[in-house]
Amino acid sequence: MGEHDPFARLRAAAGERAAAGLTRRLRPRGPRSAPQAVDLAGNDYLGFAGHPAVAEAAAAAARRWGAGATGSRLVTGDTLLHRELEEELADFCGTESALVFSSGYTANLGVVAALADGSAALVCDRRNHASLIDAARLAKASGAQVLLFDHADTAMAGAALSGAAREHRILLSDTVFSVDGDLADTAALARVCAEHGAALLVDDAHGLGVVGEGGTGALTAAGLGGAPGTAATVTLSKALGAQGGAVLGPQPLIRHLVETARTFIFDTGLAPPAAGAALEALRLLRAEPDRPRRLRALARRISAELSGAGLAATAPDAAVVSVLADSRRQAVAWAEACRAAGVAVGCFRPPSVPDGRSRLRLTVRADLTDAQVDRALQTVVDSRPRGPGGPDLPRADRSG
Amino acid sequence: MGEHDPFARLRAAAGERAAAGLTRRLRPRGPRSAPQAVDLAGNDYLGFAGHPAVAEAAAAAARRWGAGATGSRLVTGDTLLHRELEEELADFCGTESALVFSSGYTANLGVVAALADGSAALVCDRRNHASLIDAARLAKASGAQVLLFDHADTAMAGAALSGAAREHRILLSDTVFSVDGDLADTAALARVCAEHGAALLVDDAHGLGVVGEGGTGALTAAGLGGAPGTAATVTLSKALGAQGGAVLGPQPLIRHLVETARTFIFDTGLAPPAAGAALEALRLLRAEPDRPRRLRALARRISAELSGAGLAATAPDAAVVSVLADSRRQAVAWAEACRAAGVAVGCFRPPSVPDGRSRLRLTVRADLTDAQVDRALQTVVDSRPRGPGGPDLPRADRSG
Ligand SMILES: Cc1ncc(COP(=O)(O)O)c(C=O)c1O
Ligand SMILES: Cc1ncc(COP(=O)(O)O)c(C=O)c1O
Repeated sequence: MGEHDPFARLRAAAGERAAAGLTRRLRPRGPRSAPQAVDLAGNDYLGFAGHPAVAEAAAAAARRWGAGATGSRLVTGDTLLHRELEEELADFCGTESALVFSSGYTANLGVVAALADGSAALVCDRRNHASLIDAARLAKASGAQVLLFDHADTAMAGAALSGAAREHRILLSDTVFSVDGDLADTAALARVCAEHGAALLVDDAHGLGVVGEGGTGALTAAGLGGAPGTAATVTLSKALGAQGGAVLGPQPLIRHLVETARTFIFDTGLAPPAAGAALEALRLLRAEPDRPRRLRALARRISAELSGAGLAATAPDAAVVSVLADSRRQAVAWAEACRAAGVAVGCFRPPSVPDGRSRLRLTVRADLTDAQVDRALQTVVDSRPRGPGGPDLPRADRSG
Repeated sequence: MGEHDPFARLRAAAGERAAAGLTRRLRPRGPRSAPQAVDLAGNDYLGFAGHPAVAEAAAAAARRWGAGATGSRLVTGDTLLHRELEEELADFCGTESALVFSSGYTANLGVVAALADGSAALVCDRRNHASLIDAARLAKASGAQVLLFDHADTAMAGAALSGAAREHRILLSDTVFSVDGDLADTAALARVCAEHGAALLVDDAHGLGVVGEGGTGALTAAGLGGAPGTAATVTLSKALGAQGGAVLGPQPLIRHLVETARTFIFDTGLAPPAAGAALEALRLLRAEPDRPRRLRALARRISAELSGAGLAATAPDAAVVSVLADSRRQAVAWAEACRAAGVAVGCFRPPSVPDGRSRLRLTVRADLTDAQVDRALQTVVDSRPRGPGGPDLPRADRSG
């Protein structure tokens, strides 16, 4: 049996993906000083990842607090810097408390698993982010009931809450859905939760710094900052330009997470440079509260111009514009052509798209210049694939 | 129903934990320049988190590459810095390839879920780290079979592999078990895997930088660097003093992860300051290959002296020494007394301990001075709780 290679099957799987046009490739970029593509693909919505003051804050934190946290925050990994960041985040978003995790992904896994044991039912939007889906899978493995509702269908969510066969019910929804960029009706979700005595947990990863007055996020925008039974997860890795995630909510929830969330207890604390960078980004955002509004206006303009040119662009509520393609092959070719012309755009195809329809995904950035916007628009329109897209995959395979 | 607070139950749960002596509290520390406790609790085994060259590398990376990665590594979050770090890691540990994740936790979740669908059986040591346990739970939710074997029982692992009712089998084990600090017999696990055509995935979080020639980790130490069907996860957050995790293994596995691992695809790439810091730590480690051997010798000395003083200290294979307490209350009181005397030690109690036996956990650091070691030993011995520990919890509750 010494000849048997248990990973050999992975080569065959890679071959199948390649044949289906589904190969994914890493393309490392050079340093920020090198010429870069116009970036309509990243989540650095406010341009803070490359902001000199944010970089300096990361540098200062490395020196002052160390390059890493050195342990779980419950052991040696907690610093006054983490505390300050948590106080600022809670204050900015209007919640009682906040707890910082090493990523948005682990924040979602942590809070959901800590809330959802066998006594809980999770009621989830079908298009929730992968991290919330994994969180629900983990909860299910612990005996929680998981019920899905059709995307943005509040009535169906309410029906699921009232039909749930568990004592505690929690509704989980993204605020800004990451692929299409549409905004959940958070206020309506909160109402339906209140009617059923359920808790509401929203993932505001693409909302913080983008939606709401001054970028304070979807909870504030819905008048729910500090509302009882309501919590949000956010990331520090998108509009704040750093890394990490946080749960924002009432103090008893935060205490519960400190004491029971596995991805908090058994994970190294967020590295100080990321915490310092996020804190500085929050300060810049407070000092320039108009940035998010300008960002949203630019996103609407880009969407309008693409629609005007005959493309199927979504109308953005935040800073994500999705442009439908005819097939996954066309989407891949289109994104490639944009990249070749120096404009980086996202490309989503099965299984990463909720409805099985491949698309370009453009993320707008507040620091794009007019010239960059013009070039990006021109490039996306000019690179549009023409003619038949070639054979796509069978239907069953597209729904993934 | 407006009056109902769905988080109210969390207060009651916190009260129950408090009554059981299980409250966990954050204690943020001050900056590195402030007086610090002697640290026998963190995982900064080689003292790199606070090393000036590592901090400068984090600072330089923030400026050169940005404070954050700005997106998934498959979109905009990949840089030549990540590539360089992966090449160095693979080269250092003797594997063909490496892939960096945002944490060790997400690396474990990603690799296991990517390998284990409904056609796979996972055969797991009962004392594996929480992240591998969560990974197995996620895999189970996707239809994988999960079988547990008693800690370090290679024969039982072999029986589970041969009894597994799935086409593909993967054995999962920590190398250095994080609570007790004992080392798995990785070579024996690899033999049993080869006999059964199974893949071996070890979590070398506490092995990299600590065990093996020059700190090259448990795979190298077992002569398995680059062995087919064998992979390891490592963290950048412990001996390397930064944040992040990586999977090391054959190229087809790494490619499979790039294309299918959910915590890779749907997570923001590791922040450049953490990548830069880890890379510099690797360079320092190469330049001073004797550090890990000195570290292990110091751990053995500390264990021997504690045993000599009549304490139940484990004999360390790596840099973790576990000291058993009579009860969870005594363990908590003991750790508190050490802290009050300026020596930070870890304290593990249910449900974080594999056998339900509460203990102190001491992690040894290569940069402890003789004076610090003497003070730490004295403090641990002198703070030992005397007299009866007070009523502990009922037995059933201790096994968690
Ligand atoms: C909606 C949503 N939630 C959570 C995450 C995970 O956050 P992070 O990348 O900080 O782990 C992401 C993206 O990565 C996201 O788009
Ligand atoms: C054995 C083991 N694996 C994985 C992890 C997770 O690594 P990280 O903290 O880098 O997420 C840890 C500790 O945190 C660990 O002790």
